[in-house]
Amino acid sequence: MATVQPLRPSSSGFKDRFLKACRGEPVDRTPVWFMRQAGRYQPEYRELRKDRDILEMCRNPELAAEVTMLPLARMDVDAAILFSDIMVPVAEMGFEVRIDPGVGPRVAEPIRTEADVDRLRHPFDPEGQVPYVLEAVRFLRKVLNVPLIGFAGAPFTLASYLIEGGPSRDFARTKAFMHSAPQAWDRLMWTLGQNIQSYLRAQIEAGAQAVQVFDSWVGCLDPADYSHYVAPYMLELFGGLAGLDAPRIHFGVCTGELLTQMRDVGADVVGVDWRVLLNDAWERIGFDVAIQGNLDPAVCLAPWDDVEIKALAVLRRAAGRPGHIFNLGHGVLPQTPPDVLARLVDLVHERTERAAS
Amino acid sequence: MATVQPLRPSSSGFKDRFLKACRGEPVDRTPVWFMRQAGRYQPEYRELRKDRDILEMCRNPELAAEVTMLPLARMDVDAAILFSDIMVPVAEMGFEVRIDPGVGPRVAEPIRTEADVDRLRHPFDPEGQVPYVLEAVRFLRKVLNVPLIGFAGAPFTLASYLIEGGPSRDFARTKAFMHSAPQAWDRLMWTLGQNIQSYLRAQIEAGAQAVQVFDSWVGCLDPADYSHYVAPYMLELFGGLAGLDAPRIHFGVCTGELLTQMRDVGADVVGVDWRVLLNDAWERIGFDVAIQGNLDPAVCLAPWDDVEIKALAVLRRAAGRPGHIFNLGHGVLPQTPPDVLARLVDLVHERTERAAS
Repeated sequence: MATVQPLRPSSSGFKDRFLKACRGEPVDRTPVWFMRQAGRYQPEYRELRKDRDILEMCRNPELAAEVTMLPLARMDVDAAILFSDIMVPVAEMGFEVRIDPGVGPRVAEPIRTEADVDRLRHPFDPEGQVPYVLEAVRFLRKVLNVPLIGFAGAPFTLASYLIEGGPSRDFARTKAFMHSAPQAWDRLMWTLGQNIQSYLRAQIEAGAQAVQVFDSWVGCLDPADYSHYVAPYMLELFGGLAGLDAPRIHFGVCTGELLTQMRDVGADVVGVDWRVLLNDAWERIGFDVAIQGNLDPAVCLAPWDDVEIKALAVLRRAAGRPGHIFNLGHGVLPQTPPDVLARLVDLVHERTERAAS
Repeated sequence: MATVQPLRPSSSGFKDRFLKACRGEPVDRTPVWFMRQAGRYQPEYRELRKDRDILEMCRNPELAAEVTMLPLARMDVDAAILFSDIMVPVAEMGFEVRIDPGVGPRVAEPIRTEADVDRLRHPFDPEGQVPYVLEAVRFLRKVLNVPLIGFAGAPFTLASYLIEGGPSRDFARTKAFMHSAPQAWDRLMWTLGQNIQSYLRAQIEAGAQAVQVFDSWVGCLDPADYSHYVAPYMLELFGGLAGLDAPRIHFGVCTGELLTQMRDVGADVVGVDWRVLLNDAWERIGFDVAIQGNLDPAVCLAPWDDVEIKALAVLRRAAGRPGHIFNLGHGVLPQTPPDVLARLVDLVHERTERAAS
């Protein structure tokens, strides 16, 4: 789009290997970043956080930008991801949302009837409703020397919070709603999809150079339900973000059986969790699509020798192919020692240097 | 074993299609049973339960037998599974265990150090330590006209409760222990494996005609960790139960990437959750092994038409091959209408009648 600035060349000190890898281009070293690389595992984060509410932090652009940059001071990651929460835009769509530390998002009056779906506001106007997010993105884009990743929750995962009212183990209410009220489900998914598309587009126009769509909990569905109740909305969402020169990363956990569908809806990069061997996952999605992952976050609590051997196994399974972005298979755990992540970044960079072209 | 009675012939009214299917033999109709077919979804169960503690119910052989038989009065299932809990034997191995309704097992003083593993008692003497379980089995074997399935938790899943102290989302402590203290992990898994082997053997000798090993949470591991930290103990466990003339069912959720390993450790039947298409799962484990599954339990909360279409899809994916046991992909949800399960049993029986040999 006209408002998206061209990439600064890497000669100026801007590291573009993450974006190149997203596009499947050869890179000098395998890029690395971590989901939740800014978070509770960092003493600096806990210091900034203090008694603050997470949503309040997200609504303060200076603070959100500061937290976004925290990991860059401590480790050599190849991308920054905006500090925010998938519920930030949802809290401006007509639902009262809070985030309970250690528990997750809570929705005060969840969707329980078909009529409740009408409470979801549409259209979504990012500049008017979440100006602080775009302000943080604009500021970060000016100061970062690595690409900035914007993000949003996918319609299914957001719908699950809106229907369950909070985190769930079995997503029974969500699935019951989906099967019992397919028209209302369609309206809910379509509206969320449109709103999220506007939100991601605004992030890209404000300067985000890639976007990750977190469909964190979609792996609870069987492949037929995914195809019927989720894929059409993802196709529309990713389709609406095509041609914006910002790679689209599509991530979920427990998605081994959904990977080809997740590719087919339009992702440039498919993020995979640790349950699936990286080479198996890549074969399923096809080597023409980039892949992100997939060290088990819990491995970072192990002695370094184990971290190293398991990280190297991920690299070996990537086999030096262009289009691999090293990441964990889910977010950094709060108990993670910060030094382990820093060493991990260096390890991946060192061991993949010769694989460059 | 000498103590195991021969199967009563089906001409006497005993339904043996479940056991035949476990062995991959042709059957007159696809057998059906449901994990947690005795449970909170039943008004009769809630009436019996009242304010009783779950573990206390399990320790009362009359009550456990009564609950085991509840579903047989309401639907035409082809097997009964002993009413008990995977933590019942663990509570006799040196750990104080309680089960919080709606939450799950809690261990008062979990394993936090290598020395804590020594608190796990060995050997396990089922007749001395859980006589009520064997008494219930003996009684049930006399009165049931369907096969009785005994069961136990697998070492990994039991270890996770012992280490986490309760249910977990990320199993971070379990994995950290596994990676950081491999000798202690080996002792823990070996001891649990030996105890559970004794426990299952005793159930078989008391009359259980099949056993299911619930490794419910093992799907949180990557395939290499499964191979290294779990498979050897499962191989020993299933190996010790070979030749007892009781099919061994091996079940876990989120195990799509582990199915071949779960077969290789010695299962006669592999239970699969709904995330993997049944035909894909069966191809992975091989058609020489029986398969159990795999309707999403949440589908039972949908309108009947959806239940029917999705149940038929499971049957079509089984393609009438011998060795399919119809089940849900996990336990019956408490919100399930009992009538839906009864209709589901009839549906599977009716639609597979012509597939008989």
